[in-house]
Amino acid sequence: MQRTSQKVSMAVIRRLPKYYRYLENLLNKEIYRISSKELSRIIGFTASQIRQDLNCFGGFGQQGYGYNVEELYKEIGKILGLVREYKSVIIGAGNLGQAIANYSDFQRKGFKLKAMFDINPKLIGLKIRDVEILDVDNLEDFIKENDIEVGIICVPFSKAQETADRLIAAGIKGIWNFAPFDIKVPDNIVIENVHLSESLFTLSYLLNEYNNPED
Amino acid sequence: MQRTSQKVSMAVIRRLPKYYRYLENLLNKEIYRISSKELSRIIGFTASQIRQDLNCFGGFGQQGYGYNVEELYKEIGKILGLVREYKSVIIGAGNLGQAIANYSDFQRKGFKLKAMFDINPKLIGLKIRDVEILDVDNLEDFIKENDIEVGIICVPFSKAQETADRLIAAGIKGIWNFAPFDIKVPDNIVIENVHLSESLFTLSYLLNEYNNPED
Repeated sequence: MQRTSQKVSMAVIRRLPKYYRYLENLLNKEIYRISSKELSRIIGFTASQIRQDLNCFGGFGQQGYGYNVEELYKEIGKILGLVREYKSVIIGAGNLGQAIANYSDFQRKGFKLKAMFDINPKLIGLKIRDVEILDVDNLEDFIKENDIEVGIICVPFSKAQETADRLIAAGIKGIWNFAPFDIKVPDNIVIENVHLSESLFTLSYLLNEYNNPED
Repeated sequence: MQRTSQKVSMAVIRRLPKYYRYLENLLNKEIYRISSKELSRIIGFTASQIRQDLNCFGGFGQQGYGYNVEELYKEIGKILGLVREYKSVIIGAGNLGQAIANYSDFQRKGFKLKAMFDINPKLIGLKIRDVEILDVDNLEDFIKENDIEVGIICVPFSKAQETADRLIAAGIKGIWNFAPFDIKVPDNIVIENVHLSESLFTLSYLLNEYNNPED
């Protein structure tokens, strides 16, 4: 796999998923070639931003031709690491955990869900899309026996750090955290937080700002 | 309600929910006073960043005393608009919609869920935490009759824009969007997107970057 040798800024990295999503939509519409100007129109970044971003990875555009959508999609997929499987487990099989388990993009993009875990005896033994909910007491054994790389934390706030610590001790490499808590992890563990409440607060701020500008 | 007259940058606004969350945790632990240095330690921003951010809103700290946690929490709550109710509906009552309906922070912070909507006859009539799932055919009437302000979109990608257009035509003011689609809205409508797949792609990027630095 070809990889970029330079360090790319996280700001660029955070934009790549958006490119990836839009390119996928273009492919679904059977559009195979696009100019940076047209890409700019649909994605909302400036054409110069787009050229600059994509140049970080060696530049896939050709003067007068534009971008080859399929090639660009594949390259960005490679950069994003969407070229192999990540064996995953969900901890916390309540509504949020079940929603994630049912979230089709997640599995389609290589995150293979191998089990879910909960402490609730009413949930243990149930299956969500063929994935069984197991007793959280078996978490460490399962991770070790199945080479699980990613733990998805959907437990309440108060259990988030403890859950992360158990995952890390058992050998997990990355965490996708949905608990409203900033989990502390060692430097060799990667973590990506989805803080729904922060998104919600931004919405309430905007609602007030836009709707009562004169208050 | 006191409001800041200056425009505050979105970068600062996006940090406020994090302050708000940490201050709430401090209050729950009955900590009522904190220095910018100590706040820096727990929240992870530099002390100078913290002073600068909070100064944007008139500065709540006192030299040699630090911040009054309760006062700061209340002020940030006001700035974030968390001082009144927002009548809300969820469109799409699948797992994700149900997870949001069950997400306690959401309702506790003033977003009052009045109804959920779906097209699936198996879901229509069910209740999630006393909130009924209604036929999406009744969406516009319900919004108008109940002065609904916020629509939470949990429908599939292909239905996202159409759903937003219906919400806006019916008089909604803000949208919390969970569909993996950049919905277009008029300037007077506020929108906050939660793009789970983009977060997931960032995680896969980081997993590759950290775990295979030599590839």
